[in-house]
Amino acid sequence: MEETFVPFEGIKNDLKGRIVCYKEDWTSGFRAGIRILAPTTYIFFASAIPVISFGEQLDRNTEGTLTAVQTLASTALCGVIHSILGGQPLLILGVAEPTVLMYTFMYNFAKDRKDLGHKLFLPWTGWVCAWTALLLFLLAILGACSIINRFTRIAGELFGLLIAMLFMQQAIRGVVEEFGAPKNQRESTNSIALEPSWLFGNGMFALVLSFGLLFTALQSRTARSWRYGTGWLRGFITDYGVPLLVLVWTAVSYIPVKEVPKGIPRRLFSPNPWSPGAYSNWTVIKEMLDVPAVYIIGAFIPATMIAVLYYFDHSVASQLAQQKEFNLRKPSSYHYDLLLLGFLTLLCGLIGIPPSNGVIPQSPMHTKSLATLKHQLLRGKLISTARQSMRKNMNLSQLYQNMQAAYDEMHTPLVHQMPPALRLKELKESTIQLASCQGYVDAPVDEIVFDVEKDVDELLPVEVKEQRLSNLLQALMVGVCVAGMPVLKKIPTSVLWGYFAFMAIESLPGNQFWERILFLLTAPNRRYKVLEKMHATFIETVPFKSVALFTLLQTAYLLACFGITWIPIAGVLFPLLIMLLVPARQYVLPKIFKGAHLQELDAAAYEEAPAVAFNMAFEDTSSQIQATNVNISEGEILDEIITRSRGEVRGIHSPRTSSSTPTSFGDIRPANSPQLVRRMHSPRITELRGESSLGSAKQEIMLKQTPSRGSSIPRQDPKDSSSG
Amino acid sequence: MEETFVPFEGIKNDLKGRIVCYKEDWTSGFRAGIRILAPTTYIFFASAIPVISFGEQLDRNTEGTLTAVQTLASTALCGVIHSILGGQPLLILGVAEPTVLMYTFMYNFAKDRKDLGHKLFLPWTGWVCAWTALLLFLLAILGACSIINRFTRIAGELFGLLIAMLFMQQAIRGVVEEFGAPKNQRESTNSIALEPSWLFGNGMFALVLSFGLLFTALQSRTARSWRYGTGWLRGFITDYGVPLLVLVWTAVSYIPVKEVPKGIPRRLFSPNPWSPGAYSNWTVIKEMLDVPAVYIIGAFIPATMIAVLYYFDHSVASQLAQQKEFNLRKPSSYHYDLLLLGFLTLLCGLIGIPPSNGVIPQSPMHTKSLATLKHQLLRGKLISTARQSMRKNMNLSQLYQNMQAAYDEMHTPLVHQMPPALRLKELKESTIQLASCQGYVDAPVDEIVFDVEKDVDELLPVEVKEQRLSNLLQALMVGVCVAGMPVLKKIPTSVLWGYFAFMAIESLPGNQFWERILFLLTAPNRRYKVLEKMHATFIETVPFKSVALFTLLQTAYLLACFGITWIPIAGVLFPLLIMLLVPARQYVLPKIFKGAHLQELDAAAYEEAPAVAFNMAFEDTSSQIQATNVNISEGEILDEIITRSRGEVRGIHSPRTSSSTPTSFGDIRPANSPQLVRRMHSPRITELRGESSLGSAKQEIMLKQTPSRGSSIPRQDPKDSSSG
Repeated sequence: MEETFVPFEGIKNDLKGRIVCYKEDWTSGFRAGIRILAPTTYIFFASAIPVISFGEQLDRNTEGTLTAVQTLASTALCGVIHSILGGQPLLILGVAEPTVLMYTFMYNFAKDRKDLGHKLFLPWTGWVCAWTALLLFLLAILGACSIINRFTRIAGELFGLLIAMLFMQQAIRGVVEEFGAPKNQRESTNSIALEPSWLFGNGMFALVLSFGLLFTALQSRTARSWRYGTGWLRGFITDYGVPLLVLVWTAVSYIPVKEVPKGIPRRLFSPNPWSPGAYSNWTVIKEMLDVPAVYIIGAFIPATMIAVLYYFDHSVASQLAQQKEFNLRKPSSYHYDLLLLGFLTLLCGLIGIPPSNGVIPQSPMHTKSLATLKHQLLRGKLISTARQSMRKNMNLSQLYQNMQAAYDEMHTPLVHQMPPALRLKELKESTIQLASCQGYVDAPVDEIVFDVEKDVDELLPVEVKEQRLSNLLQALMVGVCVAGMPVLKKIPTSVLWGYFAFMAIESLPGNQFWERILFLLTAPNRRYKVLEKMHATFIETVPFKSVALFTLLQTAYLLACFGITWIPIAGVLFPLLIMLLVPARQYVLPKIFKGAHLQELDAAAYEEAPAVAFNMAFEDTSSQIQATNVNISEGEILDEIITRSRGEVRGIHSPRTSSSTPTSFGDIRPANSPQLVRRMHSPRITELRGESSLGSAKQEIMLKQTPSRGSSIPRQDPKDSSSG
Repeated sequence: MEETFVPFEGIKNDLKGRIVCYKEDWTSGFRAGIRILAPTTYIFFASAIPVISFGEQLDRNTEGTLTAVQTLASTALCGVIHSILGGQPLLILGVAEPTVLMYTFMYNFAKDRKDLGHKLFLPWTGWVCAWTALLLFLLAILGACSIINRFTRIAGELFGLLIAMLFMQQAIRGVVEEFGAPKNQRESTNSIALEPSWLFGNGMFALVLSFGLLFTALQSRTARSWRYGTGWLRGFITDYGVPLLVLVWTAVSYIPVKEVPKGIPRRLFSPNPWSPGAYSNWTVIKEMLDVPAVYIIGAFIPATMIAVLYYFDHSVASQLAQQKEFNLRKPSSYHYDLLLLGFLTLLCGLIGIPPSNGVIPQSPMHTKSLATLKHQLLRGKLISTARQSMRKNMNLSQLYQNMQAAYDEMHTPLVHQMPPALRLKELKESTIQLASCQGYVDAPVDEIVFDVEKDVDELLPVEVKEQRLSNLLQALMVGVCVAGMPVLKKIPTSVLWGYFAFMAIESLPGNQFWERILFLLTAPNRRYKVLEKMHATFIETVPFKSVALFTLLQTAYLLACFGITWIPIAGVLFPLLIMLLVPARQYVLPKIFKGAHLQELDAAAYEEAPAVAFNMAFEDTSSQIQATNVNISEGEILDEIITRSRGEVRGIHSPRTSSSTPTSFGDIRPANSPQLVRRMHSPRITELRGESSLGSAKQEIMLKQTPSRGSSIPRQDPKDSSSG
């Protein structure tokens, strides 16, 4: 994305780029047929449950003014509009934690003001949204999104960790409140349920349910690599396990229903959306004029904060959904999407519901699920082509050509200036070698050489089915939830608190800030364990002291941000603090740390060397597949990409310069690392080469890579397979 | 142990063997100084907590006749007597689950009999114990222990799994009972605590406490291989984590103490041992004559069962505590110990407490902790010797000779026919090679070549500090617990139920029966994961169908045994069913399975080939240490031995014939296994060579081992270290 601040220029370019694709967005979606439902339901569950949880949180914090009905309605409305009118259809919109936080601050402010009070809260937020919309328009028009690349990892990850802390705080607070009497006026609460004994029982039950959901949900996420169960079942549990578990634990909460009074455990509350006059939402526009002028002007301050948050969140979510590893073919559309967000914010504010914005992690999850879908579609086609070719006794190179032809067929040309079309990857050297060893290169492809299903998987590059249908459908399904509130009301709130904790914990892996914290806590003589797994490059190249200092600074800043959210009114300014990180990173940090180290720890696009590391890591993963496990599904590969997003990660042997021989993960042996050559005096592993300069450390790492074992295990197969 | 059935012969031989060592048993213990307390406290906790738990279980099942006081007293008394008068001091005695089970059966029988009833229960069990003692005397005198080797894995592991199921059953039953009113008359139970609401709260609280203990205890057991914390802390948490957690969770149970009535959560019950006349125990002898003659004769039946159980349990516990991997120097003493057990049983019966017998897993744990102790003592000595030699600038071979001399010094010669004294292991080839490469073999030992602390660890063979003091001390400490009942009574019963579940789960790994069950459940295309880790040999060599059939038969038998324990009175005969396994194994199974397969699945001593596999596995583990991680402590090595006890386990490349080049764990790559050569038609891994015969499978495995990478990674170090 080129940096341009000419007014309307960015928006014009975006529109030009996307209008060309618009028709194909829809036809492509319909062409996928019934299979489009898989990513749709996957994202639906991943969106709906957090939105319901945020609704409950909002309900507590605004004393019932806003509930799950409003958050669901907002998600649905904004999702539908964005899928039809938006620029980047891969971006998922929804109500997010920062919005909940801002609304909480605003409510606490409003309820104590005589002129506002509980009654005029929604109208006042209407004004806030109006100002926010104006600011977003300005940002979009002036092309502010061009500088999104300046937001380096340091800001994004600190923000991510802050959100995780807020989730965990809400989870703990929620469970603790289960031990006390409910604060909000709830429907006909059985007064028996308020006795101390039942409160105690309710609290304990809440503990059981929330921890139960938390642990089982965390376990289900690793199901793809379990030993037990068929591949289909494991994939299903990984993808749909969490919503299923919410159902399961809701059912569990009904087990003691005979012994406990109504009201235990406490369940999701919302007014019945079908009762007329249940909402004050539709009167918001009228009442907006009742808000005193002072507060209309004053609404500008929270509006600034919200605009900043939305600008950041929306654009970064879009960015994450379009990582280069996904090989997207259609152009991005940051400016226009921000403009649209402004309209959506205004609309939501006028009808008194909290606005939605682009959400993480649902957006990259959406792209990932569409990549899996595309892979399946392509795979089917290529396998049938391969089988046809084999029936005709073609040799290996003819087979390959036919598959390439079929592949190209499946890609509808776009009337648009596109990067060269993707091609099938090169045949694995092993396959070629095997064929030549057995004299098969020009002879008919023998079955032993080419395992259709496995080899096709490895030839296909990652691609995404870019279309609008999945986004529209999932937003509609969220809308249906609003109608289904009577069913949703059965979910115990403790299950939702467990889900908050689960969201917090799930967001940690892949966050380099978090992993740096863990690394600091790792005993020095255990650090080799980090090296054994995939790890970020800075572990090898940056001295430990620098890593420690950087992480401590970042942690102090994080705690400051977290502390600010506790300040009653002024806490609304916390986004400012996060934004301050950007100039701090650009001007202050280079004075404390060496440039090369900063680049490793927190690569900024404007500083970045030609990024090969991640592609190499992706290659490594696929080599890992070649070398060790022929049965890792594409789902597991993509899981790795999503988790390690935005990370230069590598196994211990990935060279910095591109190399055509992918190294095998099996070659990773810490004994070959310089750190582990034993020293006489210190029984612990020598500190990770703290003193050597960056250059020589890299040199040494590359020296040690001398693959005495050959670069990929399959090369040795020829000898073995002869006896096989 | 030679098989001899000449009366008194076995006992005589045992006494002859052990009397010689008797003095040294004590002096050796005192010489260890204060360090003897580490294994002592370790075993104390490992003994005391189960005994307390069994006491609570007995309390429930005998309606308060026997409680934790009696079980603790029995453990203490028998432990003290055995440590002073017993043959094998490494054997730990205590009240075990089978005893609890038998007493439960006997109580249920007695309480319904008009002539016996609750009143004469203890006297009747006195008669049972008398008969048991008689039978044990007979067995000991006739040398029945000689045939203990005929008890193959199939019986032992089935028994182990049965005990685990019984533990789990008690845990579940205990927690469920927390939801209902307590059955036994307890001290001044607050009637408020009996209200439905508080019962519900109590039940939920019990769930929280028991699962809390279960999960945290399971986590703490893996602490030694954590990434975080210092080595000392990790070792401490692994060894003492569980008793600490019992304390922690007991403290947690006091958190809501202000809000809940007395009695929630329910805590350990026992009458105050200090109140006079609290027990009917001391009157048992008098009342034994009140028991009707019919029942005195009838007592023979449960006595037979108990005698069989004790014979089995006591001898196998002793066997496990003396595995050949421990390199014990003093002789075994099965016959005499069984004789002593008879006396102890009689004594316990006469004073109305349940008898104790040799317990698993505390006995091998005792030996293991003494091995660690010995290792530390030797290590200190050798390190100082090495340092001295280096100061004098000796070369590598002189250094080695000095250490060997020091090592021999530390071994007091016994006036007894002993196997040749252990010697230090060979210096690692790597060390020698490194020395020669750098021209250091005959030059003064440079510091880079010889890392004193690491290399000394690797030179020391496993040895055990065999003495009686630790056993005596831990038994005395258990006795002190009886006096400390007012403190122990604070432990909530739900914590004990969690501990039961923990004991059940902890006993599973290493039990090949269990691992075979898991293997059956493993999806076929995931089976390579089993091969990647240390696994038993049969996975490679026995066809899957045979493994499946064997396991299914064993499972059916297990369920039959478990089912029998549910039958009210006849259930007392369940030990018979287990004993039936022995002739079944010897005569029936060879008709169903091939001899070679049976040997793999269930090696019997009388069938066994020269057992090299386990030593190889031990070598493999140490090679693993050499190759990958210089920081695995000896504790982790010994953990492996204990867990994999009685198992022929191996990494994928361990050859059946002994080889002098230990293969590296790093070489284990499933891609080299024949199973994983890809086949065209089936996308799943070809079934583990089901059809090939044992011989050719072994051939193929050995072919595949062609270590293209060299047999041990350290060999490659010379090149690398030159740049290091």
